Amino acid sequence: MAKHILSVLVENKFGVLARIASLIAGRGFNIDSLAVGETEDPTASRMTIVVDGDDKTVEQVKKQLNRLVDVISVQDLTRQDHLDRELILCKVAVTPKTRPELVEIAKTLEAQVADAGVKNITILLVGDQAKVKTLLELVKPYGVKEIVRTGRVALARDV
Amino acid sequence: MAKHILSVLVENKFGVLARIASLIAGRGFNIDSLAVGETEDPTASRMTIVVDGDDKTVEQVKKQLNRLVDVISVQDLTRQDHLDRELILCKVAVTPKTRPELVEIAKTLEAQVADAGVKNITILLVGDQAKVKTLLELVKPYGVKEIVRTGRVALARDV
Repeated sequence: MAKHILSVLVENKFGVLARIASLIAGRGFNIDSLAVGETEDPTASRMTIVVDGDDKTVEQVKKQLNRLVDVISVQDLTRQDHLDRELILCKVAVTPKTRPELVEIAKTLEAQVADAGVKNITILLVGDQAKVKTLLELVKPYGVKEIVRTGRVALARDV
Repeated sequence: MAKHILSVLVENKFGVLARIASLIAGRGFNIDSLAVGETEDPTASRMTIVVDGDDKTVEQVKKQLNRLVDVISVQDLTRQDHLDRELILCKVAVTPKTRPELVEIAKTLEAQVADAGVKNITILLVGDQAKVKTLLELVKPYGVKEIVRTGRVALARDV
């Protein structure tokens, strides 16, 4: 079992997401993360789907996705050189004493303090999975209140 | 019609995404963007869903979501003070002449050059919708090759 990053270009039509999510769930795959957004073409959306599975079953999913009318193209980025980033917003409990420590953690990881309240501080980080993991480990002892993550997005790197 | 940002905490179970996407599509809503990622609790995922609709129908969708067994909570962030960010990777055609201009655009918007090839340059930006729009308008004349966006994620701001 390995993580596969599929980049799926789809027609921007009603119910496409439901059809794709059902197809993947129907094949017994769990979706690790999924991000859908607009593209350079207003009639198309791009989904970045991270699934766990062996190569053979991921091959099957790709074939089935390609058969859907609304799917324009499917790219498995796992085997190509690619950029892979995720955005995370992480709200952590803060006291006057711990504030400078948390600001320092954000600085070290090239993250930003996106919001600073009396009791909480929200750190915004963009990075690969290793960097996201490091942030979560570093802030854990302070008390994590809320996390929201975009899921991974990826693009093939250029030669 | 207005954009509503729903933050939905769900059990991290098989097929949940398919059920939620079907429910929303079944109510005649189009999903503008959707991002699903892990949370501070390994048994739960958080979905940020942006839908277009009037208040009354969004209220209906919230009710229906709350009825799903796998849904832990639904928050409509639209009416609260909230942080709202999106990550975009944008691959643009480049020549030796246009390279400095594109690097300058990235700098001005506090974006990064995430990959630089011979023919293309990939700009990574995190921002609100206005900033993403500005980037797209500024790079358009150079020739956009590929875009991948995470969809918006949001968190309530602290007092």
